[in-house]
Amino acid sequence: MGEVDRAISLFEGGVTSPLGFLAGAARAAIRESPPDKLDLGLLYSLEPCAAAALFTVNRVRAAPLLISERHLADGRARAVIVNSGCANASTGERGLGDAEEMARLAAEKLSLAPQEVVVSSTGVIGWFLPMDRIRSALAGLRPSRAGGLDFARAIMTTDTVPKSIAASLSYGPPRAGRYLVGGCAKGSGMIHPQVATMLAFLTTDAPVQPDFLRESLRRAADASFNMMTIDGDTSPNDMVLALANGAACGPGDESIGPGHRAAPLFQAALTQVCTHLARELARDGEGASKLIEVRVEGAADEADARRAARAVAGSLLVKAAIYGCDPNWGRILTAAGYSGAQVREQACQLYVQEVRVFAKGLPEPFDEATLREALASREVNIRLDLGLGPGAATAWGCDLTEDYVRINASYTT
Amino acid sequence: MGEVDRAISLFEGGVTSPLGFLAGAARAAIRESPPDKLDLGLLYSLEPCAAAALFTVNRVRAAPLLISERHLADGRARAVIVNSGCANASTGERGLGDAEEMARLAAEKLSLAPQEVVVSSTGVIGWFLPMDRIRSALAGLRPSRAGGLDFARAIMTTDTVPKSIAASLSYGPPRAGRYLVGGCAKGSGMIHPQVATMLAFLTTDAPVQPDFLRESLRRAADASFNMMTIDGDTSPNDMVLALANGAACGPGDESIGPGHRAAPLFQAALTQVCTHLARELARDGEGASKLIEVRVEGAADEADARRAARAVAGSLLVKAAIYGCDPNWGRILTAAGYSGAQVREQACQLYVQEVRVFAKGLPEPFDEATLREALASREVNIRLDLGLGPGAATAWGCDLTEDYVRINASYTT
Repeated sequence: MGEVDRAISLFEGGVTSPLGFLAGAARAAIRESPPDKLDLGLLYSLEPCAAAALFTVNRVRAAPLLISERHLADGRARAVIVNSGCANASTGERGLGDAEEMARLAAEKLSLAPQEVVVSSTGVIGWFLPMDRIRSALAGLRPSRAGGLDFARAIMTTDTVPKSIAASLSYGPPRAGRYLVGGCAKGSGMIHPQVATMLAFLTTDAPVQPDFLRESLRRAADASFNMMTIDGDTSPNDMVLALANGAACGPGDESIGPGHRAAPLFQAALTQVCTHLARELARDGEGASKLIEVRVEGAADEADARRAARAVAGSLLVKAAIYGCDPNWGRILTAAGYSGAQVREQACQLYVQEVRVFAKGLPEPFDEATLREALASREVNIRLDLGLGPGAATAWGCDLTEDYVRINASYTT
Repeated sequence: MGEVDRAISLFEGGVTSPLGFLAGAARAAIRESPPDKLDLGLLYSLEPCAAAALFTVNRVRAAPLLISERHLADGRARAVIVNSGCANASTGERGLGDAEEMARLAAEKLSLAPQEVVVSSTGVIGWFLPMDRIRSALAGLRPSRAGGLDFARAIMTTDTVPKSIAASLSYGPPRAGRYLVGGCAKGSGMIHPQVATMLAFLTTDAPVQPDFLRESLRRAADASFNMMTIDGDTSPNDMVLALANGAACGPGDESIGPGHRAAPLFQAALTQVCTHLARELARDGEGASKLIEVRVEGAADEADARRAARAVAGSLLVKAAIYGCDPNWGRILTAAGYSGAQVREQACQLYVQEVRVFAKGLPEPFDEATLREALASREVNIRLDLGLGPGAATAWGCDLTEDYVRINASYTT
């Protein structure tokens, strides 16, 4: 992957960085919030797009998901309408009707068929959408090339900062081809593996075959969003959507599919964008003060590495200890121990901020004051070598603070 | 079960309530703690006992567990030595030697073989036991009939109160037979289904066949300790142990086994004692201000009911909402949705403090102020009818407070 990754560069950008995408946002005052809080977003491609999506694995599924799944069945879409503040979940027939109307309103505005519109909502469960306010806010919304960041802001709930990024990928001889991938995402509680409970929207001006887009998205999400955990909860609402409009397609360029020379590059760029967003989501987890990166190596296989890394990143006791700069490494081993992964204490080596604290069944002496100081960093690195095989994986999480409790003790109020 | 349960009464008591059991505790100052904190306990039966135990499912297993498992292989034991403050986990060969020495020291004191002694430790992982201090504290320890509560105190770590209870069971014609069951337990973080991360010691003066004791203990734990969750973490250390010494055996009484007329009574008494302890453990979860009881009914089967009940009781978002008296019922449905249980929103009915908040796919109107007030109670009841089948189960948990974070951000310090 070294050479592939060198052909990719991340830059400040977002869903409207790729050619042919417009976005914008407005305020529908869906719930009480500061008057400058945007809560309705619209993303639009000037060209038809291949579209692929991953949906929540929760058995309780919100109305917008049910509608979007139907609209995406043909692997095509051209627009997304999304609101924050109200999840339109557990809202029965009326909720389905509201989600359908959102698609219809966006379609009318953009002169599309409703089937070309993806609908997405995030926020409180069990409330009905204020359709009148959405209608009038949408009427005043003007999508533009400059609107990507506003779109990223409109999808925020308890996020403290918008998350947005873009990547360029060049392939073949210099300047032979250059495509862009953009993305934005929102968290920040209720985040857990399996793409449940977050929204991410990805765009590219590369021409991509729908099946290949779906497979690339699945792989990218497996290495990023599915390795991120905030609190173990998953929501009925959330989705990762990718749109590929081919607007940067040169004359004679073929759509990217398996075997295409740009395929590995496209996969890597999509994965890098998703990984960046996943890390930012973890860093901005509800109440979080630190990003925790957990690398597991030497696992019996990759599945075991993923299990162990996620269990460590998700352990409340690990998260609380790291918040307190407490080098209580026993909790890390313990979490790996109950993860379901094969673990033999005698074979383990554990590093916290690159200080070895445990090796081959025994604690390693370390200077506690120094390690405490190192744990006061905004990024904490945990590396566990299980010493059993070739499996490796990385997971991301955040520390557990009093603020997490405060935020979640009063979300609906 | 109605008639069976009427023949059982719970009373204030503990591990020395049944005949023939002595217990006591001492202070070995295993870690810094108030000078009156007991941290070494000894439990002893005057008669040989049938013994059965359940151990952690964590792949990382502490030294005392490995030794105890060996000593219990024959289904017999007569004493337990237990310490708090240091888990003797992740301590390699030296830890195994220390656990063996604890058994030997207790055996010498009580004139038993080391194989008759069960060893148990709880506390910080990765520390070695101060064997000299344990030795001298043990020398001064005097087990007695009155020592049950001290024993319950000695096993406490972050528990705020000791947990101890006893039950009497009468069977046959009046006064034909009367046996006692006693127990104590400690939590209070790191508690989760599968009996990982808690200690419970159960005693009875009933004569019980070893195989039947094991099976009864498994059933009792499945309905109690395995349905309790504090934070989803499990520890390398913890165990549930049952000792049956038959000291109340009358002339001609046969050992209780399958088909014995007292068998259902014994099972029910053991389950009641375990359930009482599990509820008390949940109530005293780290930082907890409320006990949460989650009843799931109408599940497709019992396994689904258990899954859904545990997921709801374990959801951080549910726990935080209940702490904040926030009737945010969407989080409850959501947790059931990701539990793995079969869930159809249209079939669900959800009650919070017996107020119906959701029915057949739609929110039910309720008076929010009244429900908020009801949620300010020290016990919160959640009842979810999935409307799909005969499966039912109850789980216990506690709310998530800022104090949980504070306690766990600095446990080793």
